[in-house]
Amino acid sequence: MSIVVTHIERAEASSIDGLAQAGVATAHEAQGRTGLMHSGLRPIYAGARIAGSAVTILMPPGDNWMIHVAIEQLREGDLLVAATTSPCEDGYFGDLLATSAKARGCRGLIIDAGVRDVRDLTAMGFPVWSRAVHAQGTVKETLGSVNVPVVCAGALVHPGDVVIADDDGVCVVPRAAAPSVLERAREREAREQDKRRRLAAGELGLDIYGMRDRLAGKGLKYV
Amino acid sequence: MSIVVTHIERAEASSIDGLAQAGVATAHEAQGRTGLMHSGLRPIYAGARIAGSAVTILMPPGDNWMIHVAIEQLREGDLLVAATTSPCEDGYFGDLLATSAKARGCRGLIIDAGVRDVRDLTAMGFPVWSRAVHAQGTVKETLGSVNVPVVCAGALVHPGDVVIADDDGVCVVPRAAAPSVLERAREREAREQDKRRRLAAGELGLDIYGMRDRLAGKGLKYV
Amino acid sequence: MSIVVTHIERAEASSIDGLAQAGVATAHEAQGRTGLMHSGLRPIYAGARIAGSAVTILMPPGDNWMIHVAIEQLREGDLLVAATTSPCEDGYFGDLLATSAKARGCRGLIIDAGVRDVRDLTAMGFPVWSRAVHAQGTVKETLGSVNVPVVCAGALVHPGDVVIADDDGVCVVPRAAAPSVLERAREREAREQDKRRRLAAGELGLDIYGMRDRLAGKGLKYV
Amino acid sequence: MSIVVTHIERAEASSIDGLAQAGVATAHEAQGRTGLMHSGLRPIYAGARIAGSAVTILMPPGDNWMIHVAIEQLREGDLLVAATTSPCEDGYFGDLLATSAKARGCRGLIIDAGVRDVRDLTAMGFPVWSRAVHAQGTVKETLGSVNVPVVCAGALVHPGDVVIADDDGVCVVPRAAAPSVLERAREREAREQDKRRRLAAGELGLDIYGMRDRLAGKGLKYV
Amino acid sequence: MSIVVTHIERAEASSIDGLAQAGVATAHEAQGRTGLMHSGLRPIYAGARIAGSAVTILMPPGDNWMIHVAIEQLREGDLLVAATTSPCEDGYFGDLLATSAKARGCRGLIIDAGVRDVRDLTAMGFPVWSRAVHAQGTVKETLGSVNVPVVCAGALVHPGDVVIADDDGVCVVPRAAAPSVLERAREREAREQDKRRRLAAGELGLDIYGMRDRLAGKGLKYV
Amino acid sequence: MSIVVTHIERAEASSIDGLAQAGVATAHEAQGRTGLMHSGLRPIYAGARIAGSAVTILMPPGDNWMIHVAIEQLREGDLLVAATTSPCEDGYFGDLLATSAKARGCRGLIIDAGVRDVRDLTAMGFPVWSRAVHAQGTVKETLGSVNVPVVCAGALVHPGDVVIADDDGVCVVPRAAAPSVLERAREREAREQDKRRRLAAGELGLDIYGMRDRLAGKGLKYV
Repeated sequence: MSIVVTHIERAEASSIDGLAQAGVATAHEAQGRTGLMHSGLRPIYAGARIAGSAVTILMPPGDNWMIHVAIEQLREGDLLVAATTSPCEDGYFGDLLATSAKARGCRGLIIDAGVRDVRDLTAMGFPVWSRAVHAQGTVKETLGSVNVPVVCAGALVHPGDVVIADDDGVCVVPRAAAPSVLERAREREAREQDKRRRLAAGELGLDIYGMRDRLAGKGLKYV
Repeated sequence: MSIVVTHIERAEASSIDGLAQAGVATAHEAQGRTGLMHSGLRPIYAGARIAGSAVTILMPPGDNWMIHVAIEQLREGDLLVAATTSPCEDGYFGDLLATSAKARGCRGLIIDAGVRDVRDLTAMGFPVWSRAVHAQGTVKETLGSVNVPVVCAGALVHPGDVVIADDDGVCVVPRAAAPSVLERAREREAREQDKRRRLAAGELGLDIYGMRDRLAGKGLKYV
Repeated sequence: MSIVVTHIERAEASSIDGLAQAGVATAHEAQGRTGLMHSGLRPIYAGARIAGSAVTILMPPGDNWMIHVAIEQLREGDLLVAATTSPCEDGYFGDLLATSAKARGCRGLIIDAGVRDVRDLTAMGFPVWSRAVHAQGTVKETLGSVNVPVVCAGALVHPGDVVIADDDGVCVVPRAAAPSVLERAREREAREQDKRRRLAAGELGLDIYGMRDRLAGKGLKYV
Repeated sequence: MSIVVTHIERAEASSIDGLAQAGVATAHEAQGRTGLMHSGLRPIYAGARIAGSAVTILMPPGDNWMIHVAIEQLREGDLLVAATTSPCEDGYFGDLLATSAKARGCRGLIIDAGVRDVRDLTAMGFPVWSRAVHAQGTVKETLGSVNVPVVCAGALVHPGDVVIADDDGVCVVPRAAAPSVLERAREREAREQDKRRRLAAGELGLDIYGMRDRLAGKGLKYV
Repeated sequence: MSIVVTHIERAEASSIDGLAQAGVATAHEAQGRTGLMHSGLRPIYAGARIAGSAVTILMPPGDNWMIHVAIEQLREGDLLVAATTSPCEDGYFGDLLATSAKARGCRGLIIDAGVRDVRDLTAMGFPVWSRAVHAQGTVKETLGSVNVPVVCAGALVHPGDVVIADDDGVCVVPRAAAPSVLERAREREAREQDKRRRLAAGELGLDIYGMRDRLAGKGLKYV
Repeated sequence: MSIVVTHIERAEASSIDGLAQAGVATAHEAQGRTGLMHSGLRPIYAGARIAGSAVTILMPPGDNWMIHVAIEQLREGDLLVAATTSPCEDGYFGDLLATSAKARGCRGLIIDAGVRDVRDLTAMGFPVWSRAVHAQGTVKETLGSVNVPVVCAGALVHPGDVVIADDDGVCVVPRAAAPSVLERAREREAREQDKRRRLAAGELGLDIYGMRDRLAGKGLKYV
């Protein structure tokens, strides 16, 4: 059963852009330490920080046909999130697909597989988080699905979820939770601002967080 | 039986330089998706794109003696391609060997093992593709061979084959096939140029490649 | 038994700074090819080269409480060296802890686990060598120890040992051995200087090191 | 937010037992090649084939407290399915927990982490599929959840889903789909019975499945 | 270019059977420590020791169509040796294919990918060496080739080469070399017989092999 | 500096044999969850449970010379514990060395590298824990050391330490601590005996260990 879901709900642009600013580590903390993809996904170049609405793809190993199908479903501000039905490191995506995705308003690609043409993608400023860089080509023979729920790099992603990616990895925020996660992320950032200042001045976390009694209570000995 | 083959055939310089320009992904496609090394080989710095004639080395684990032997066999425009008889991540190669290889006209090193002094190698502009960066030193006690066929990172390499390396990985083109692979690579690039322009303008691959009927025939449903 | 050792011996600053200049590969050779951590530890950005006195941390999986405890033990010129009681890739350390450590004079972190906020750490110029980059948060529930001997990434580290880290990896020099290792490292560098010049001029290692007879004696054949 | 869901729906015993008989490969095919956990989960001994209703557990790294909580939720015919919030190979489960789980009617454990006391578990006939065997002990300090949806070894599992495990791995069948998947599995087995007989008699799959024309049409050449 | 080579040369049955008796470790030593596949290939059950003529298969990831094609090319005494064009752990082979292969005289399967139905294969006594056990199904959409040279698990295999497999792994002996490798294997076994007796009686290898002088000459110190 | 330490202290036989009986998981708990080697070391066959005094070996990659040297240092009741200076999976040890070691009273081998002839070793009842099974041969060219402290599979081992190995892995108990660890192991076993009986009768760990209040205090909710 191969399907393309053509209508998906998306979060508000303001939530998405706010979460991009917060970044992966903060958003992950703000939603109770959930939603992270595993650490095997790495950016092809350092410094990118994006968020967007997930257009999801489920693909067979060695077959990138569904990416072509998914690109038609993209809207301004979306991200592609691509998972495979079994582990594969082939180079599913390169500069032609990136050119097409970018023309449709796509902000980047998260793929639990391989990518190629990384020099061109870097030059284009099209960010990709992948488990491998590999020139290995793919075929277009077997169907998959677009905009179905997928498990990508260990995280469950529904179409339209907000996906945040930066140098620390990739985090999924369920669409409906985006506003409240953003709010908690901003509160967290505000709290951290003050701590950062005190720590920079030489105060110790042991004192700022009041840890000494609890450490002693657990039995920590200084010798 | 440890041997050094002192005479090897090489491809024409024009084919080699043309293939360097085409890059790994294109050359790999142009020869029917063959010849790629596995994705575990990564460049020590981004942005290098080279091709050269392979001077091959087969080495025991933890022993880099044969690299010294191989350097004497290098000519202007060659690459070193080093495999081990069993998996090893030791740092077989550093700045002194690179200085020597460069003085003999060597364009870079492909090694299915470790490399060290990567800061110096980067400063020298001597590109290396390796499976590890590791300072671990090696000995010079056990023979291997130079300019014999080797399996390096999963790919069969004969001495004198053209090896292309860039940010996407490493690809081997058999010496005799170099001119025809180059020709197909150029045709491919020409075809892609037009597609890139159309995709950038927002046309869809689904239409450019005429995929819609075939997708429907396979049973893809839009819901 | 969770303890914090509050007094540790450190090497002389001159030895430490000399070893930083020598770098990992040279120091490792100078002490008889011992002391390297495994190649899975990688720097979060290229180009840093540091050495310092080890303040060691032993931590449970997913729990970074002891890092807060360790920071109080830091002095100007120290490094944090953090090991876990079982393998874990969680992001134990981020920009707040780095701000605090830096304020105490810490030169960097070596951690056989994950790190996060790498964009901020890079901007701060706070170097980290880790086995993973991962945003995954940790808790503060279970004790560990500070300034006890630890096995970190396969190498035994005593508190106060000199730890050197650069793009080639991480090397531990026992505190008492630091002066003699530095001396041998400098001798090695001096010897290499002359060889580098000769190799750059096109002389072969086979001749400089007088290897031809030994190779023939072992049975190497040129064909 | 740590919760224990005390009431879950389960599939009919007849469906569960039928799926156990079908086994992992057949059930996976019968539901359209979905639901498999990744191949890193291996049985601690060969030959077990079970199915049961999933009681799910989400645990922090190095902390097995929630297993104690989950055991209270077990009913006759259930399986424990345990995932962690980040990768961990610690030995979360041993013979005492197995004794307790067995006394509550538990048929086995699927755990994307480590297990220990495997000699005792084998002697008890308590089957476990795990990603590691490791004696490493765990603590009881941090909460998780019981009977919430989890991603275990790459597969999404809801409490009460039917989980099948044998020497080929582990497969999840959504609770509501169990009867129809069982029906298709039985049809598949029936069809295979006839093919097995014909193949054993020396007939070729090329002929039984009528593949020759399609192969020729795709361009296969016999030389 | 997808081809099936229908005529291949095979080694003499006596050489093949002799090599099976010698086993992998001995045959590998007898041909100068070459021909081993990497250690990731493991038998699905312990105790099998076979040798046969290789019928080779090159397959795309996730597609087992070519195995059906290859089975027609099998003769009594052959082995299937299956490689993929990029890494894949899918279960390419199960009990139906094994039934068919066995009916054609096939002695076993070497596959650098996954296998399933291992309980049935074990019951049938059909040995398989694979990199994974995984129930994941495959498709039949994309061609590959049969009886072309392949790199399988790091070793180059030509059709008709003798492949030996046992609990120690898998070794390839080029067809033409089979008689001479067998001869050296038997000589080696004869020599070892005497050593085994002396070692069992408590004599030391240091003395039997006369190693003491050479160790002292290299600088070994007893303290 | 390659040395062989010819005199080492050993623990009392009664402590060693008591620890063998306790097994790895219990001994590891009894010494405060320390001393475990990593989970990559696996037994070549199931069911062995041994303990002995460590005769340690440090070897270069691909070179097993030092095993011959170490065998001379063995006494009745010893174990060989072999580490390499860099990661290697070669088959360092086979049936001839096992015959020799067994004749000297050796109880088994722990090796952070590869082993071969596993069918023969199994038939001999000579247990080995290794990171790989691989037929790959080694050379005898480069010295290492015997009876020096080594880091083996992540654990620090001094010569004469008690090493315990069973299906759960490998654990090191420092020589001097052996009697007290054994005592705590026995106490632990005694305590577990009673719990096992109560758990088998259907009592819950939640009640036996009095966990309910602490769980509620941490915030666990039943819904």
